[in-house]
Amino acid sequence: MQLIDGNAIAESVLAQVAAEVATIRGRKPAVAFVRVGEDPASISYVAKKQKTAAQVGMDSRLELFPESTTQAELLAKIAQLNADPNVDGILVQSPLPKHMDETKVFNNVHPDKDVDGFNTVNVGRLVQEDPGGFVACTPAGIVELIRRSGTETDGRHVVVVGRSLIVGKPVGLLLLQKGLPGNATVTFCHSRTRNLAAVAREADILIAAIGRPRFITADMVKEGATVIDVGINRIPDATKKSGYRIVGDVDFDAVAPRTARITPVPGGVGPMTVAMLMNNTLKAWKKKHA
Amino acid sequence: MQLIDGNAIAESVLAQVAAEVATIRGRKPAVAFVRVGEDPASISYVAKKQKTAAQVGMDSRLELFPESTTQAELLAKIAQLNADPNVDGILVQSPLPKHMDETKVFNNVHPDKDVDGFNTVNVGRLVQEDPGGFVACTPAGIVELIRRSGTETDGRHVVVVGRSLIVGKPVGLLLLQKGLPGNATVTFCHSRTRNLAAVAREADILIAAIGRPRFITADMVKEGATVIDVGINRIPDATKKSGYRIVGDVDFDAVAPRTARITPVPGGVGPMTVAMLMNNTLKAWKKKHA
Repeated sequence: MQLIDGNAIAESVLAQVAAEVATIRGRKPAVAFVRVGEDPASISYVAKKQKTAAQVGMDSRLELFPESTTQAELLAKIAQLNADPNVDGILVQSPLPKHMDETKVFNNVHPDKDVDGFNTVNVGRLVQEDPGGFVACTPAGIVELIRRSGTETDGRHVVVVGRSLIVGKPVGLLLLQKGLPGNATVTFCHSRTRNLAAVAREADILIAAIGRPRFITADMVKEGATVIDVGINRIPDATKKSGYRIVGDVDFDAVAPRTARITPVPGGVGPMTVAMLMNNTLKAWKKKHA
Repeated sequence: MQLIDGNAIAESVLAQVAAEVATIRGRKPAVAFVRVGEDPASISYVAKKQKTAAQVGMDSRLELFPESTTQAELLAKIAQLNADPNVDGILVQSPLPKHMDETKVFNNVHPDKDVDGFNTVNVGRLVQEDPGGFVACTPAGIVELIRRSGTETDGRHVVVVGRSLIVGKPVGLLLLQKGLPGNATVTFCHSRTRNLAAVAREADILIAAIGRPRFITADMVKEGATVIDVGINRIPDATKKSGYRIVGDVDFDAVAPRTARITPVPGGVGPMTVAMLMNNTLKAWKKKHA
């Protein structure tokens, strides 16, 4: 069993991005973060993304709004960032306050600056296999983990557990695409699936994105499979100062010995998300300078 | 074994559309067809669609262009139809001449008049499960066949053979959606799939959309499955005046006895496509009058 080291792979993606950014003369790629309210997780995510942007030599800025901001005010800022020639990528940090329509807000980010890949146009481009689109960072990161760990996809059976818009569907659609890494047979299963264990056991590559702690047990995994664990679940742990710890969607200790390769949680998919955001921002800069 | 009668189901869809159109006072739903060149199949398809529009009480018009038309001229006409308040739906008949970029042309049809469902925005809406989008007519028709033949999808395993943008991917995505008819476990397989027969045998509902005559043989079908045959393939037949006949992607004679339900070719999926186009046009009219 080989542990797929998400931290190391993310660092190598970031090193490639940094090397390419270093060759750019003049204005560097720039990403604008928009945060509404003071959600502690959002504060932490955006800070991490800004720090990583600086690490790879990109510019970033942060547009802060109070929780009480109206959707119209937020959309006005997005329109301004869309029009700003010095901004390549725009990321509106989720979750937004309940009085806003998140889909509508994301769809107001211009598709060519939509480094988060949530605009309906970019979702459509993914289905249409248009390489000019932006793919959401978590699914794009999963594909990089698969590729850089030497996992073959051609003709292999990928089973995605979970049909969410932000992970399950896009990652399956990516691996279904013509060309590599892709050309996989792809099965989507979910909470309504009958005999999920039998379906999951068919997987050469099993992607767990269902959001339930240690849901994938050893009997659901074929000997020699590659397992990608997208889950980030908090479970109570009295031995921790915080009172909890993070576990994935996979029962790691029982499953890992059966696998050819597996991602840990934390340190697997997680670090890839920020790395792919930087990759998308560089791509947005390139699209503008093509 | 029950034969799924696509002609009868299409007629019942059309009767419902006609009944609803009959209640509309004032301007009736209207669809504009755009045809470029004199491809015999295109002439025949558009004529059939216009006749069906008349049958359900809708207005239609035909915009004809010579093969030599420039893409700019075509796009100018589409812009005019987009702006025309008396046009609800626009259908640009495929194939376009080789000097045109079909994807670009389709993307110039306004998403809210895109009754063909080929605009990238409508493809994205399908993934995002936005009921306000337009779904391409063939996959939408397949789902109606499944629904109206009483075939259950909840938790059932759908295997789609073929990953095309116009049939395979959208029909699988529709049946994966939350709610009914949907909630299926969905597998996409294709020419690169290893051991396709074994994968196909898992299907409770097998959808053949691979474009190869009689590709699906009896050993690929589970006893009691429902089989939907999307194929329209010409094979030589000396007994026919035309010199050919149409067969599906399924080896019907060998497969049918094993199935619970199966669509014939012709008379299965084919008739549904035009019926769903009328349904989409009515939906476009309703969106405007909501």
